[in-house]
Amino acid sequence: MTQALTISCAERVLDAYRRIAEADRPEVWITLRPETDVLAEARELDRRIAAGAELPLAGTLVAVKDNIDVADLPTTAACPGFAYTPATSAPAVQRLVDAGALVLGKTNLDQFATGLVGVRSPYGPVRNALRPEKISGGSSSGSAVAVALGIADIALGTDTAGSGRVPAALNDIVGLKPTLGLVPTTGVVPAARSYDAVTVFARTLTEAQRALAVMIGPDGGDPLGRTWPDDVRLSAPEHPRVAVPGDDDLTPLSPEARAAFRTAVKRLEAAGAETTVIDVSPLLEAARLLYDGALVAERYAAVGEFIAGDPSAADPTVAGIILASGELPAHALAADQERLDGYKALARRLLAGYDALLLPTTTEHPDIAAVQADPVTVNSRLGTYTNFVNLLDLAAVAVPAGEADGGPFGVSVITRAFEDQPALDIAALLTGEQAPTPLPGTGVDLAVFG
Amino acid sequence: MTQALTISCAERVLDAYRRIAEADRPEVWITLRPETDVLAEARELDRRIAAGAELPLAGTLVAVKDNIDVADLPTTAACPGFAYTPATSAPAVQRLVDAGALVLGKTNLDQFATGLVGVRSPYGPVRNALRPEKISGGSSSGSAVAVALGIADIALGTDTAGSGRVPAALNDIVGLKPTLGLVPTTGVVPAARSYDAVTVFARTLTEAQRALAVMIGPDGGDPLGRTWPDDVRLSAPEHPRVAVPGDDDLTPLSPEARAAFRTAVKRLEAAGAETTVIDVSPLLEAARLLYDGALVAERYAAVGEFIAGDPSAADPTVAGIILASGELPAHALAADQERLDGYKALARRLLAGYDALLLPTTTEHPDIAAVQADPVTVNSRLGTYTNFVNLLDLAAVAVPAGEADGGPFGVSVITRAFEDQPALDIAALLTGEQAPTPLPGTGVDLAVFG
Repeated sequence: MTQALTISCAERVLDAYRRIAEADRPEVWITLRPETDVLAEARELDRRIAAGAELPLAGTLVAVKDNIDVADLPTTAACPGFAYTPATSAPAVQRLVDAGALVLGKTNLDQFATGLVGVRSPYGPVRNALRPEKISGGSSSGSAVAVALGIADIALGTDTAGSGRVPAALNDIVGLKPTLGLVPTTGVVPAARSYDAVTVFARTLTEAQRALAVMIGPDGGDPLGRTWPDDVRLSAPEHPRVAVPGDDDLTPLSPEARAAFRTAVKRLEAAGAETTVIDVSPLLEAARLLYDGALVAERYAAVGEFIAGDPSAADPTVAGIILASGELPAHALAADQERLDGYKALARRLLAGYDALLLPTTTEHPDIAAVQADPVTVNSRLGTYTNFVNLLDLAAVAVPAGEADGGPFGVSVITRAFEDQPALDIAALLTGEQAPTPLPGTGVDLAVFG
Repeated sequence: MTQALTISCAERVLDAYRRIAEADRPEVWITLRPETDVLAEARELDRRIAAGAELPLAGTLVAVKDNIDVADLPTTAACPGFAYTPATSAPAVQRLVDAGALVLGKTNLDQFATGLVGVRSPYGPVRNALRPEKISGGSSSGSAVAVALGIADIALGTDTAGSGRVPAALNDIVGLKPTLGLVPTTGVVPAARSYDAVTVFARTLTEAQRALAVMIGPDGGDPLGRTWPDDVRLSAPEHPRVAVPGDDDLTPLSPEARAAFRTAVKRLEAAGAETTVIDVSPLLEAARLLYDGALVAERYAAVGEFIAGDPSAADPTVAGIILASGELPAHALAADQERLDGYKALARRLLAGYDALLLPTTTEHPDIAAVQADPVTVNSRLGTYTNFVNLLDLAAVAVPAGEADGGPFGVSVITRAFEDQPALDIAALLTGEQAPTPLPGTGVDLAVFG
């Protein structure tokens, strides 16, 4: 980061802890590291830099969602009874640290990454960075808010149904949801392991992308790990063809949000994109498989036995969802996986001929109190435009796109698997940033020391 | 086929029906087409050839396993109550017909392709082509025997656990089990759809490979369809590195069969291969997931409701297996799929640095009476060396490799997904055939009219 060149890593850490104190958002953190510990690491970094060390992320301050291992800090997944303290960091974290990043602590989340609200946690609901009475979105709630408040430069989230994108939209920041398997999920508490991705929040695409670049690459431990194919696309075309939904597919949005979405489409067009209205309802239908069907049984496979052992140890909403999934028959899961394969083929046909699909990131921005009063219905609605993405093996970049209904509005650029860089390029047309250095090249180079 | 150039298609059909009568193996067929129908098609073919039509498989006689659709013939899957008559042929069949092949009829199988014995069918156990008191192997029993008896030039099978390879070994013919997804499974009654492949039996690698070449390519209908990757290997190296099992992994074999396997290894070495003994026990362990775990629930998803509706309509052994799989919980399937992904990663590491793995195709050759007396135990053992192949996304070519215990002995060349051509090349070192024209090129060209 450029700041690292002008002020020392130690100064950046001191600033961050000042902002933490000023912000007074204790619910953001499940484990905040002692300032002295981080400061000592920052000083050591400053010494190495003075001695000529070249670290692409020197002094970058990182917040890590508390379902991702950081060595010697407890991993709780927002369930105190589940906590364990790993001896090693997840590769996603270790690669950032190896590149010069400093971990500030572990952030709050919807327990076991089950939720899109940021309210389902015994560590308290995470208040929105901009409008404290509103939800932060989840499940990567604390990570998104830590970035939005300017405490962390980047934060790691995870995303199965939208957990790395919905909080980005609601806190007016960037969220990268890379292609499944590119960033190892080793050392991450699974939500639904077939559809889990490690994600990055940042205030700019460039910062998010630089972090992602060092995180990508096989680690030898993630059985679902994948590498860039030989024919990977390194950029979007100058005039990308972007599919957009028609009014019928935008009915969950308020009129103001719909107008904000149309403004984003116009902005893309003004930047050179050719947009085409398509019927995205089959994708939104596929989204329903994630929770209305049997795919959710993967959550039981991950932590069901733990919860069944002592249901009172878990958040009641989360326990309800996961324990119910334990009752489903295997043939229903097999049948839903077959349906999902059908939807995947359908999505390939639907998106053929387009470089990306632009959608609103989420539907609305509820108050914390409203979600506490009805913890399931609103949550489901929030995933309308995100749930299908991982199910159908797509990549997504969530970016701010103006305002609606008195708060931030966000859109997502969705692409085929491995088209992460075209997604970033198209997202940059919306934010006005210069498109960052192509990902795959960077990823491949840096994987060597990762 | 070269014969087609010297004798007419009509003469070939007449010969085939003479052989059918001579062989007196009515249990091979569930539906044998009337000779006059096939003859009329042959005469039409002869007219087209005389008029200059170029058909790569002109006059090739094909037998089709009766879980694969042929237009206007019933598809029974060896369960009369399940039968339906499709209006269109499966793409795998249609592509052969378009290339000039003639379908003789539909062959007997272990019901719903559930079995490796060829005994689980209300149409009668299929007797071995060479030793009638012995099993044919299954589930593609009739197809293998039709080829082994010289009635059909090629036959289509399906293979989930070894159904396209075990019968090849027991009837002394070639069985190609291509990479999953290369040949569309559209129009095929699923066994366990994630692991089902359409296979080819023939008496030579060249014949099998020519047929496979026209069958490969996306059809737009199979959601699990795949295409050759850009970096597909078009041949095995001159000195292929072949992994082979040690004695510990060959204990299920008789001493004579073990000696036959060692002879095959020596033959490979004499042909230029470098062999290395590796511990294949992790692969054999993965094999057990197919039936001892919850993956079998895919069979319930495919035909479970039908069987549950009237269990007496099904073979009792088959009904028992499939109905039991209906009782399994979804989280157990999710957990076994996770285990399977772990085994896949393990297999990648185990086979890294090798062009192929050579294994016996099956363990033994039981009498029909022995299998009837104990329909499950022997069946399970027969899949020891085949079950893991589709689970771990590998390709395989089964070829004859001499004799043991008074009958044929067979081995399989197993490669990574998409390395079908290297597998054929290495198999050709064993049979002494010249390696046929590389597959992918042929497949890609012919896919245009397929």
